[in-house]
Order: sequence, then C-alpha cells, then structure tokens
Amino acid sequence: MKVASGMIKVLGICGSLRKSSKNMEALQYMASEAPKVGIEMEIADLSEIPFFNSDTEDDKHPAVEAMLQQMMNADAFLLASPEYNYSFAPALKNALDWGSRIPGNTGFGGKAASLISVGGGLKGGRSQYHLRQVAVFLDLFVLNKPEVLLSGFDGTFDEDGKLTDEKSMQRMVDQLMALKELSLKLNPPQPVVPVIKKEL
Amino acid sequence: MKVASGMIKVLGICGSLRKSSKNMEALQYMASEAPKVGIEMEIADLSEIPFFNSDTEDDKHPAVEAMLQQMMNADAFLLASPEYNYSFAPALKNALDWGSRIPGNTGFGGKAASLISVGGGLKGGRSQYHLRQVAVFLDLFVLNKPEVLLSGFDGTFDEDGKLTDEKSMQRMVDQLMALKELSLKLNPPQPVVPVIKKEL
Amino acid sequence: MKVASGMIKVLGICGSLRKSSKNMEALQYMASEAPKVGIEMEIADLSEIPFFNSDTEDDKHPAVEAMLQQMMNADAFLLASPEYNYSFAPALKNALDWGSRIPGNTGFGGKAASLISVGGGLKGGRSQYHLRQVAVFLDLFVLNKPEVLLSGFDGTFDEDGKLTDEKSMQRMVDQLMALKELSLKLNPPQPVVPVIKKEL
Amino acid sequence: MKVASGMIKVLGICGSLRKSSKNMEALQYMASEAPKVGIEMEIADLSEIPFFNSDTEDDKHPAVEAMLQQMMNADAFLLASPEYNYSFAPALKNALDWGSRIPGNTGFGGKAASLISVGGGLKGGRSQYHLRQVAVFLDLFVLNKPEVLLSGFDGTFDEDGKLTDEKSMQRMVDQLMALKELSLKLNPPQPVVPVIKKEL
Repeated sequence: MKVASGMIKVLGICGSLRKSSKNMEALQYMASEAPKVGIEMEIADLSEIPFFNSDTEDDKHPAVEAMLQQMMNADAFLLASPEYNYSFAPALKNALDWGSRIPGNTGFGGKAASLISVGGGLKGGRSQYHLRQVAVFLDLFVLNKPEVLLSGFDGTFDEDGKLTDEKSMQRMVDQLMALKELSLKLNPPQPVVPVIKKEL
Repeated sequence: MKVASGMIKVLGICGSLRKSSKNMEALQYMASEAPKVGIEMEIADLSEIPFFNSDTEDDKHPAVEAMLQQMMNADAFLLASPEYNYSFAPALKNALDWGSRIPGNTGFGGKAASLISVGGGLKGGRSQYHLRQVAVFLDLFVLNKPEVLLSGFDGTFDEDGKLTDEKSMQRMVDQLMALKELSLKLNPPQPVVPVIKKEL
Repeated sequence: MKVASGMIKVLGICGSLRKSSKNMEALQYMASEAPKVGIEMEIADLSEIPFFNSDTEDDKHPAVEAMLQQMMNADAFLLASPEYNYSFAPALKNALDWGSRIPGNTGFGGKAASLISVGGGLKGGRSQYHLRQVAVFLDLFVLNKPEVLLSGFDGTFDEDGKLTDEKSMQRMVDQLMALKELSLKLNPPQPVVPVIKKEL
Repeated sequence: MKVASGMIKVLGICGSLRKSSKNMEALQYMASEAPKVGIEMEIADLSEIPFFNSDTEDDKHPAVEAMLQQMMNADAFLLASPEYNYSFAPALKNALDWGSRIPGNTGFGGKAASLISVGGGLKGGRSQYHLRQVAVFLDLFVLNKPEVLLSGFDGTFDEDGKLTDEKSMQRMVDQLMALKELSLKLNPPQPVVPVIKKEL
C-alpha cells in the first residue's frame, strides 16, 4: 500500500444520531483504518450540538466550542451522510452551519473533504449531491473519486449492522488515501525551516 | 380578487429560529392575508422541536406531538426557507423529517405546498430547489408558479425588517391563491352527503 | 385494474438517440400498455431536432414543428431520461427547451408529467432530480410516486435489451395510471355542453 | 497583480450558440485577459458538434476530433453556462459528454475547472450547480471561489451586449488567477530533469 508522505488530521462528522447507525459504523471503520494510511482521525460528537440560531450563537456552548476547535484543527473532513427524505440529515448540515461561522472560515476554507453514505435504493446518493452544493459556499474541495455509496440492505453490512463487505471496505480505504493526497496537494505541509544559529 | 371557493387549512413552517427573521416576517405577512383568500393559516412553532432520532422518536415530546397534529390537520403547506450555506436550514428539514414519520404519510401525502425564501444574492433560491427534492419523497406537490424569492438587501424589507415592497407582497398573495387552487384540484372537498332517513 | 375515466393523450420523449436504447425500450413498453389504462400515447422523434438557438428558431424546421405540435396536443408527458455523466441527456433537455418557446407556454403549462430512467448504480436517479428542476420553470407538475428507476445491469432487461422484469413492468403501468389520475385532477375534462336546438 | 508562476492552458466552452451571446462575450473577455495572468486560453467551437450518440461516436467527425484534441491539451477548463429553463444549455453538456468518452478520461480527469454564467434573476446560478454535479463524474475539480454569476439585465452589460461593469470584470480576472492556482496545485508542472551527459 503506497501512502502519501506526511500525516494529516481528518475530522469525521456523521449525520445520524442513532446509536446503531450504519453511517457511524462505516465512519468508525474508516477511523480505525486511518492510521495505516497516515491519517489521524477523530469523530465529532454531535449529540449535544443545538440548532444554530444567530440570536444565541455567542452563548459559548461547550459542545459547540469543542467541535469548532476540532474543525479548526482538522486538515480535511470526512462526512458520513445518511439520506433522510431524499436529502441530508439536519444534524450534519447543522454542524457545518456552525462551522461556517468561524471567523475567516478557518474551519473549512480551502480544505479537502470526502463523502460517504449508507442508504437504501440510491445508497444515500441524493444526500451527497446536496452536500456538495453546501461545500461550494464552505469552500471545501470535495473529492470526486472514489465515491463511497453503500446500501444498508444488500449484505454490505451483516445482521448486527457490522460492515462486512471487503470490496466496500477496500474502497473506503482507497477514499482515505485519495482524501489525503488531495489534502496535501491543496495544502502542502510547510517546510520546517531549520533555525540556524548565527555565529557572532 | 377572485377567490377559489371553499376554505383550506395551510400550515406555515419557517426554517429560521431567529426572533427577527425576515423569512418569518414574510410568512406572518402571508398568514395575515390568508383569510382574505379563504385560507385558515397557522404557523408551526419549531423552537422546542429536537433533532429527529429514531432511537427516541417514540418519546412523545409535547412540541413534536403538537406539530404532527397540525401537519395532519393541514390541507396544504407553506414553507419559508432561509438559505444557510447554499441549502435549507436544518430546523425546517428536521420538521419535515419528523412529519414524514406519521404512519400512512397522512401529514404530507398528496397535499399541495408552496415555497418562499428570503436570502442574499440568489434570494434563497439554492435552498428552494433542494426542498423540492425532499418534497418528492414526502409526496408533496410543490407549486411551480409564482415563485417567491426575496432579497433581504434590496429594499424589499425596510431597516426594521418589515416587509414593504408592494409588488412582492402582491406576489405572495398571488401565491396563496395559487396554492389554494392547486390544493383544491389535488384534494377536492368531499361533497356532504345528506343522510336520508329511510321510511320503514 | 381500476382505470380513471376519460382518455388522455401522453407524449413520450426519450433522451437517448441510440437505436437499442433501454430507455426507449422502456418507453415503448409503456406506450404499448397505455391504451389499456385509457391513455393514447405517442413518442416524439428527436433524431432530426437541431440544438436550440434563438438566432435560428424561426426557421420552421419540419421536425421541430411536428414535435411542437405534438407537445401542444398532449395532456401530459412521460420523459425517459438516461443518465449521462450524472445528469440528463442533452437531446431530452433540448426538446424541452424548444417546447418552452411555444407562446403562452401552451406546450407544458400546468400539465402533468412523469419520469422514468434506466441507468447504472443509481438507476438514472441523478438525471431525474435535475429534470424536476427544469419542470419548475416549464410549469410541469411531475408525479412524485411511483418513481421508476431501473438498472440496465441487474436483470430488469434481458441480454437482448428487452424488458423482462415483471415487477418493474407493473410499476410502469402503475405510473401510467397515476399520471393519468394527476392529469385529470390538474386539468379536468371540460364537460360536453349539449347543443340544445331551440324551438322556433 | 500577483501571478502564479508557470503557464497553463485553459479551454473555454460556452453553452450558448447565439452570435451575440452574453456568455460568449464574457468568456471572450476572460480569454483576452488570460495572457496577463499567465494563461493561454482557447475557446472551443461547438457550432458543428452533433448530439452524442454511441451508435455513431466512432464516425470521426472533424469538429468533434478537434474539440477532443483541445480538451486533451488543456490543463484546465472555463465553462460559460447560460441558464435555459433552470438548468444548463444542452450544447455545453453535450460537449462535456463527448469529452467524457476520451479513453482514460485524459480530457478531464483530475483537472481544474471554473464556471461563469450570465442569466436573469438568479444570474444563471441554477445551471452552475447542475454542472458541478456533472463535474463529479468527469473528475473535474471545480473552483469554489470566486463564483462569477452575472445578470444580463442590470447594467453589467451595456445595450450592445458589451461587458462594462468593472467590478464584475475584476472578479472574472480574479477567477482566472484562482483557477490557475488550483490547477497548479492539482497538477504541478513536472520539473525539467536536466539530461546529464555521463563521462565515459
């Protein structure tokens, strides 16, 4: 496995709040594989994030503050998007809306992102293309390929909701590698300038 | 002003939770005009609606129960959609997601809907077309014309956020009439069948 | 099979120009079933329709004139939309663009439409939601359910490209019936007023 | 004006076939400014490109062959997208469909692109977001900012259809520079390896 040099930090965000979410299962699988391809990956906790409301956005809600800090620290994003009624889940979009308020867009601006979805007949696809439109304003560059669109009903997951399809799992690792490659192209690591002590 | 006969009930839902929301201002203007065109209009209160989560959806949250009842009672819907980051506001989509769980889809199935938005350069348009995709799964028939796309920055609203542009206001009343006409076509009022007492 | 009373005329338009197009195969199947549900169905011939160009739109191209006449005569539309590069085929959109120029929008305004697609992994879905946005401006009311999204690679069609899956075929007939029902709601047949000969 | 080093080749493609197209006018303005920011820009001629049809795609149509060669030679793309009936013009999508058939996707794969549109109320915006979905499959990375959305009716163009608004013109030059920067990040120029003559 060829891994792009350097290490990047990826923040995973999952739109489903369910305990046994297949989207979260898939995201966690990717987080577990991430170190093998030189990615340090965290997953944001959306359980306590309130709806964005500009009237109260300065309330310094601890869960929001923690998430915004994670966003600023991240080099790239991995968004897991269940499809609710032919579009994305509100909790995911709400997290992005909060992140969009970071001054100077230092959460998202110019960073790379990739998308995964677990859904039904169209495998969550309808939600992914809506998210891509959101990404335009956020100034996130969303990876084109490989797309990860998974069905929750065709054996990709077993009866206990565990990811079992090896081809899908490989595709997810491939996406991680492609995300890292895109991130490093868009935002090359700054060369460490050695501090040279000048002789007096 | 020609008004279609019969009376219909419309539920307004606004995606912005802000106190001084221009989308809510526009929706309230339409609610105030509704009776003149034979529409009984209520506006849902989203302030206490939690994020949908299927793990806890049976918790009988009072605010949710009240909203679902309003949805079942409504003949048609008027959705006010601010544009957040090039798509709809999570609070609006979340209300629709909750409503989609009513058994038999008796909240939305086969009913008419119309959309308004107040936004910036594209007047909230980007959010409206995403909502239309959501409506496909909800089986809501969204009115095509007249579209109501308003700018929050071109004098349609005054400095205090009050709607003042008469042309826009007329367009909004025209939309109410068209919504009523569509609703009555899709779901004609059932004729009252007189109970005839049979002589024995 | 319950059939709505009355007869409607449906114009089918297929975005693929290929001889052995599966989208055309599906459309032709529906045309063959249409009379059974009280629909008179024609399929437009796009093979000689040029790209729309307002510089030359008054050139009275015979193929265009014939298609525009079919559009004006139609009560409703059935659009077969292959997915090319994650959106609709240019030939289909071009036919709609031509039709949109009919004065007074008498081709499309206020009429019903339904969509079918044959595609790959997402079964042409990505093209259908783009077409629905086009329909907003055309003022076509697109049926929500049943959606017909077919795969060209899962046995729905046999090796010779013939439609063979009975469940899909039933769904297509169901869509025809729903299209007719929607069309009759939107545009009820005008009651035939008997000419009463006045006695002199 | 800070210009990224190196020179890139950009191919412009315009969806309108009209002689006095404002989209073409805008594209030509950008072509005229391109050399100042280190871009060599050509504009494809779509006037003789037929509808894509896989039955006849091997016919070696000279206009198609020339366009495909331009696509392969290009480092990046600038797409000018009029909005016809709430989506893109068929001629533009058709050009992209042809390009997508180049073996190995050497026309588009991994290259940068940017979008401009001249339209009405929403300034062509509805067409741009559909094109972005097409770009996903083409594996084009579309620039997020600055977006160029122009109105044909607010004085950006004068009565003769000439571009006159200086702010818009600056924005277009800014987009060219951002396109070049993105292109160079995605596809850095290969370092010229000096051929070292080995002493025998």
